[in-house]
Amino acid sequence: MTIDAYHAALAEGRAMPLDWWHACSLRIDQREPEVQAWEALAEAPAALDERLAERPLYGVPVGLKDIIETVDLPTRWGTRGYLHSDGALVDAALVTLLREQGALIKGKTVSTEFAYFTPGKTHNPHDLTRTPGGSSSGSAAAVADGMVPLAFGTQTAGSMIRPASFCGVFGFKPTFDTVSAAGVKSFAPSLDTLGWFARHIEDICTTFSALTRAPRITPLESLAGVRVGVRSLPGDVAPDDDVEQALAHAQSRLEQAGATLVPLALDARYEALVEHQKVVMAYEAAQTLASEYARFAAQMGPKLVELLEEGRAISHARYLEARRATNAMQQALSGVFDEQVDVILAASAAGVAPQGIEATGDPLYCRAWTLLGVPCLNLPLSHGTAGMPVGVQLVADRWQDQRLLQIARTLMSQEVPA
Amino acid sequence: MTIDAYHAALAEGRAMPLDWWHACSLRIDQREPEVQAWEALAEAPAALDERLAERPLYGVPVGLKDIIETVDLPTRWGTRGYLHSDGALVDAALVTLLREQGALIKGKTVSTEFAYFTPGKTHNPHDLTRTPGGSSSGSAAAVADGMVPLAFGTQTAGSMIRPASFCGVFGFKPTFDTVSAAGVKSFAPSLDTLGWFARHIEDICTTFSALTRAPRITPLESLAGVRVGVRSLPGDVAPDDDVEQALAHAQSRLEQAGATLVPLALDARYEALVEHQKVVMAYEAAQTLASEYARFAAQMGPKLVELLEEGRAISHARYLEARRATNAMQQALSGVFDEQVDVILAASAAGVAPQGIEATGDPLYCRAWTLLGVPCLNLPLSHGTAGMPVGVQLVADRWQDQRLLQIARTLMSQEVPA
Repeated sequence: MTIDAYHAALAEGRAMPLDWWHACSLRIDQREPEVQAWEALAEAPAALDERLAERPLYGVPVGLKDIIETVDLPTRWGTRGYLHSDGALVDAALVTLLREQGALIKGKTVSTEFAYFTPGKTHNPHDLTRTPGGSSSGSAAAVADGMVPLAFGTQTAGSMIRPASFCGVFGFKPTFDTVSAAGVKSFAPSLDTLGWFARHIEDICTTFSALTRAPRITPLESLAGVRVGVRSLPGDVAPDDDVEQALAHAQSRLEQAGATLVPLALDARYEALVEHQKVVMAYEAAQTLASEYARFAAQMGPKLVELLEEGRAISHARYLEARRATNAMQQALSGVFDEQVDVILAASAAGVAPQGIEATGDPLYCRAWTLLGVPCLNLPLSHGTAGMPVGVQLVADRWQDQRLLQIARTLMSQEVPA
Repeated sequence: MTIDAYHAALAEGRAMPLDWWHACSLRIDQREPEVQAWEALAEAPAALDERLAERPLYGVPVGLKDIIETVDLPTRWGTRGYLHSDGALVDAALVTLLREQGALIKGKTVSTEFAYFTPGKTHNPHDLTRTPGGSSSGSAAAVADGMVPLAFGTQTAGSMIRPASFCGVFGFKPTFDTVSAAGVKSFAPSLDTLGWFARHIEDICTTFSALTRAPRITPLESLAGVRVGVRSLPGDVAPDDDVEQALAHAQSRLEQAGATLVPLALDARYEALVEHQKVVMAYEAAQTLASEYARFAAQMGPKLVELLEEGRAISHARYLEARRATNAMQQALSGVFDEQVDVILAASAAGVAPQGIEATGDPLYCRAWTLLGVPCLNLPLSHGTAGMPVGVQLVADRWQDQRLLQIARTLMSQEVPA
């Protein structure tokens, strides 16, 4: 059920304001022992504030990645407890922005350690022996499993798009800085971006408009006239068969919806962005988590310690080189979007969710786009090995989020040919 | 005394490691009842960690604006208590980065309310009937009064450069994102920038290298070959006589040091940046402080409430227009720096510090530069009305901080002609 469908049911008296909350609670009761998506669950609200009845997220239960601070729920930042807060002095800005739009905070979802690689307890709801991806593991799994219709995460490398692909849901990372990250633990401040997961593209769109107060996004009749460039970054690594097939399937859906596929050549400077992203992430994380490292290094996962120490060894000159290259490629890519394509179709992840929950998979195909600050949307269009979901991402130019969402919404509104 | 001079005295046995700390304590005891620069003072350390003796900030007492969170000192964010923390779970990243370089946290300095306009209790040490400027009021006043050699603040509109000008000290706002703001209250995330005040340009440079691990900045023999464009933003508002004279004096100092003054025409699009900065600041602050507004609006200063409500009324489209224009002008300005000038000389503030401490002055001449993310350095070169300090700022392209500091250090190392 979409948010709009729920609101229609409320308006027609076919549903009560707390129905969705209770349905989610029931699903969580059934499935949480196996999926393990949650760090903390909120008490049911006694009643809803009817003054918010016309707001776009009225009565919608929402999950929040556990690096988003809350006054009335604990936060542990994926640390398994070495850093623990019983409640923040002030809610993260996002929490208030959601509540003002009528949303109900269902609870805090599992994050990897400080949203880096040390995994939490969450399993992929499509196959409990596999990872849901990370770092926004619990939010992606909870949405995929029907525990909540909407959940928030963050992306610094590939922490929204990869779990969305692994879990078979829509995952949207808007343009950098679209939603204020106040009260959200930072990792690499020039990369960290709040985003959200949903099972319906309509709900991704509704949430974008609710948080930014942009106009509602309505589908076009078709994608006639929309130019889609097909180009993953990096482009010099051959994706596996599942990803190739997902890209081919998406191309055919896009063409059937009227879009024009455009061959897209991007020069070698774009290939260097993956490495620049690693430099920016490590350098900034070493600064940003300096206090956590000073106190908790002995309790941190080895991959996090390794990154923070690697970051300290990166020279200021190398960091500036990466920042300057990013700026140059942002301008170059804007030229590509101005002249050649409306959106780019790219791989979301290196394949289906890997076996095991000791690792969360590789963010390879997300690093460059995150560095560029462009909006990215995972489309859960395909299934691959063992029937597992495999997504593709649509990418647009910075600040073209509305156009990107409109194209995706139009694509999803087309009948799927047999 | 500069940091380097103190370290030389330590090396030669002419000073003890805690001497500077105790000298600062004495000065604070004498002057704090009148200047009122501090929110909280730290206990004297029992001894210094000698393993840090070779670090660039060893033994240097430092003030921190009270929006920078600390584990062992309270934080009140300039709210006079409606938001109060006895101690954060984790220090702001800056605190650990400073301690690792040997610095000693002397205490927390007065900030305006959430670093916006509601003033704190601080007076200008040059004339207690005048404002020190804001929002980094206590840090600027403490450094100007000799209470600490180094203090940190933030700039979102003009909160470093304006108080530096009013208090007659060097104030440096580096390129946006140079020092991680983790643990620093955010106001408008795409503008907020950590910076620092010192009485000596050498100490500004030492601190830059200590925090970024960039190489030490050494002066050139002269400014021969350095091109300086003279251009304030906005350029269509005539500064008052004190500022005109300060700009003229700075030009003459620069020319005497060998620099070439270059007439600099910037087109009308640059004039629009002041208005774009107001839009970005209000839109982002309304999001970022949504939780504080929801809980504390009744206790907030009227100017802050007005800004947050104004921010809520700004459309997403208007915000995007400002972000796109900023991006375009950043690229255009980089072209100016590539082709025409090495640095720009501009007004720091609209005049000397105004009478009264009920307001902190106007950030007009800082808004555009802050929006552009470029590094800005206040040079305390002149005095105006009533003998009050009046500064000018040098501005460089993004990521050209080292070049900017080297030019300023060279300028200050030249003999001042009679």
